[in-house]
Amino acid sequence: MAVAQVADRELHRNPAAIAAGIAALTAAFGKRVVTSQSVREQHGNTLTWVPNQPPDAVVYPQNTDDVQKIVRICAEHGVPIIPFGVGTSLEGHVNAPLGGISVDFRDMNKVLTVHAEDLDCVIEPGITRKALNEYLRDSGVFFPIDPGADATLGGMAATRCSGTNAVRYGTMKDNVIALEVVMANGEVMQTARRAKKTSAGYDLTRLMVGSEGTLGVITKLTLKLSGIPEAISGGVCPFPSVEACCNATIHTIQSGIPVARIELLDALQVKAVNMHSKLGLPETPLLFLEFHGTEASVAEQSERFGEIAGEFGGGPFTWATRPEERSRLWEARHHAALSNLALRPGAQIVATDVCVPISRLAECVTETQADIAASRLLAPIVGHVGDGNFHLTLLVDMSDADEVKRAKGMAQRLVERALAMDGTCTGEHGVGQGKMQYLLAEHGAPAIAAMAAIKRALDPQNIMNPGKIVALD
Amino acid sequence: MAVAQVADRELHRNPAAIAAGIAALTAAFGKRVVTSQSVREQHGNTLTWVPNQPPDAVVYPQNTDDVQKIVRICAEHGVPIIPFGVGTSLEGHVNAPLGGISVDFRDMNKVLTVHAEDLDCVIEPGITRKALNEYLRDSGVFFPIDPGADATLGGMAATRCSGTNAVRYGTMKDNVIALEVVMANGEVMQTARRAKKTSAGYDLTRLMVGSEGTLGVITKLTLKLSGIPEAISGGVCPFPSVEACCNATIHTIQSGIPVARIELLDALQVKAVNMHSKLGLPETPLLFLEFHGTEASVAEQSERFGEIAGEFGGGPFTWATRPEERSRLWEARHHAALSNLALRPGAQIVATDVCVPISRLAECVTETQADIAASRLLAPIVGHVGDGNFHLTLLVDMSDADEVKRAKGMAQRLVERALAMDGTCTGEHGVGQGKMQYLLAEHGAPAIAAMAAIKRALDPQNIMNPGKIVALD
Repeated sequence: MAVAQVADRELHRNPAAIAAGIAALTAAFGKRVVTSQSVREQHGNTLTWVPNQPPDAVVYPQNTDDVQKIVRICAEHGVPIIPFGVGTSLEGHVNAPLGGISVDFRDMNKVLTVHAEDLDCVIEPGITRKALNEYLRDSGVFFPIDPGADATLGGMAATRCSGTNAVRYGTMKDNVIALEVVMANGEVMQTARRAKKTSAGYDLTRLMVGSEGTLGVITKLTLKLSGIPEAISGGVCPFPSVEACCNATIHTIQSGIPVARIELLDALQVKAVNMHSKLGLPETPLLFLEFHGTEASVAEQSERFGEIAGEFGGGPFTWATRPEERSRLWEARHHAALSNLALRPGAQIVATDVCVPISRLAECVTETQADIAASRLLAPIVGHVGDGNFHLTLLVDMSDADEVKRAKGMAQRLVERALAMDGTCTGEHGVGQGKMQYLLAEHGAPAIAAMAAIKRALDPQNIMNPGKIVALD
Repeated sequence: MAVAQVADRELHRNPAAIAAGIAALTAAFGKRVVTSQSVREQHGNTLTWVPNQPPDAVVYPQNTDDVQKIVRICAEHGVPIIPFGVGTSLEGHVNAPLGGISVDFRDMNKVLTVHAEDLDCVIEPGITRKALNEYLRDSGVFFPIDPGADATLGGMAATRCSGTNAVRYGTMKDNVIALEVVMANGEVMQTARRAKKTSAGYDLTRLMVGSEGTLGVITKLTLKLSGIPEAISGGVCPFPSVEACCNATIHTIQSGIPVARIELLDALQVKAVNMHSKLGLPETPLLFLEFHGTEASVAEQSERFGEIAGEFGGGPFTWATRPEERSRLWEARHHAALSNLALRPGAQIVATDVCVPISRLAECVTETQADIAASRLLAPIVGHVGDGNFHLTLLVDMSDADEVKRAKGMAQRLVERALAMDGTCTGEHGVGQGKMQYLLAEHGAPAIAAMAAIKRALDPQNIMNPGKIVALD
């Protein structure tokens, strides 16, 4: 089965079909179909160096029936459908390379049911992670997945994202119990029931999680929730080198300490965080940590971690005992990418990520640091080191063609380095358009052929977010 | 898309094609192709009331190349391929309703690599869970998934099984990192790299886990391992009712106690275990528990659980402090199904399972107990209660047609009851042939159509374990 990469060929849009589709949508949804230039551009990719490819129109559904109607109209006219949350994806997931309709879930942002006894909830896709946790605040439960941005849960499921808590709580793959999905044929599919586990047939939930809107449009999510820990403690621990950070992390995890967060910042990233968030941290490789449990258990975890850190020349481990101190630390961590602008005002931020087996992490990070230096680039590193996943925030002067070229070359070598270490081209950002070119090298031809066969089987017209993950001939 | 259930139609085998396939296999593999009646029958379903449908031949591959060759020969002749581990599946997964070739992984049972630093290993599919843990014994890590039987890891992945540790360690879905799969077209697919997480494309790993050999043949597994806990404590706690057991479990999980095992036995099951394993337990609903962690943390977990148990009229919580005492308890738990034969010597055991949201568990179990009594049947209940999953071991006199009919009716009502509670027809046994008839009611037509479309896309000839999960027209 032949699979073409978008880069290999011209994508063709069909303006007449799109115009007919927009007319039909406007007849059905009136002012909830918007075609103004500014709204359209806002719904194309606006972050990183993936160019903005705006959709031809944006439509705002209010319920599953609306989405079903939109999909049916688009299917009838052969018009591409691009689901849109808040647009924080980094690899061009929301772009419209063939034109088409952006389906914006702004108005589908409700919590439908919270089953506290079952530790789950049912929500609409347009709610953001912060809004969900705000809603859950007094119910003793929370949703742990926290990408840097305040993304929507629909988008988070679609990109299989994770964040700082993943080392303990898993990724979206582990925290989505079931989905309602409008398929390309307009049918509304339930992927699973609300039971905590099942062996009843193919795992359609996991197939949809991470499929980036290319197999269907998510209209409802049943999410696993976690109990708010009785005690949380956290802090910061400096190390003499990135390698020492990584080794301390490996030993922490191997020794069974159920660390909730363990985040690496390289010295340059610490400098940026200090400039932006005024934390006064030592400008050396650091681990940010958090432990969840009972009072006694978090104390024990912290103590044991302190001992391991000492073995690798790290320390002292400084506790952030007061909640506001801890919040400040994690706020700073979540703003790490943005804070890098302080290092080079006026530059554009280009974020990328890879993930490798944890035993190769130190090597991968230090080789990457050397490559950054050799490429005369500025790119702080921050990592979900417990998972072997790290991010590079390239600070690029987009008007300098040579620098852009050097940055792109470096990003490509980063992926090649990760693949050579049995890693993946993206741990949590997703494929979108930006990483399509690496999938063949990562997975091999049989897997790409299987992905394409599944795509064709479930979306024979290729209208569901076409030109992402696998492009079809 | 029309999808037929096997029950709805006659399945046709093609004896000429099968004979030609066996001849070609024999030319390639000589004595490693076996067609004797006894070996063939041993490779059909031998447990429960699903009738034995033996394959036409059994072949024993020694490596991936052999499996590829087998699949290519079978594809050329249009002969069904049924992967076989040790035959402990319960729903007719290994039966050959259309005839065909059983691929027995007896000789592919090696541990290929253990990456202790990364907490993973690469193995062949024919190794059993006990053999794997025996191999890992001195390396500080273990593989936690433990179905009752000493199943092969290939079979465990194929059926998405779980067991007593799932409440803490997850199911096979959570513990398989990557698979090597020979696809229906003979290509060898890698589903993923060894990185702990990835967002790089469709989750082919999770699609293959639980697909019961209907989408491809697993030839290699990369498994997640866990550190052997520093301390383990466990014990037994009696309760006045099944409902009290369930409520104590809900509160234990909600309060964030990271219980490793929490297993319900109803009074009848306790009686059977006492008879078989001579444990002298009080014959009332019980929870068997186990806590993993540091010395301090398991002590704290046990204490907190004891308090919760007290709130629901349970207790005293009796610790099994010595390892041999604990082993005896869990050995007895793993033999629970078998031990039931002591209650009715000569009866046949028919095991079935469902899974519901934990808030509905008490209701589901007590209604089921009432149904068992009203149906004049003997069927002890044992459950992975932390997951809302429970098993019924029906003790059936197969020569009594009326009793068999009553038992089948009760098993069907059990599934209907679970589905009405937003549960699943099988939490961990899988679909095979035995639960196909319930998938439509559980998932709805759009999901079944999607499963059938995927099956058709990846196995257009319908040679991969046909007649299981979704039967195609």
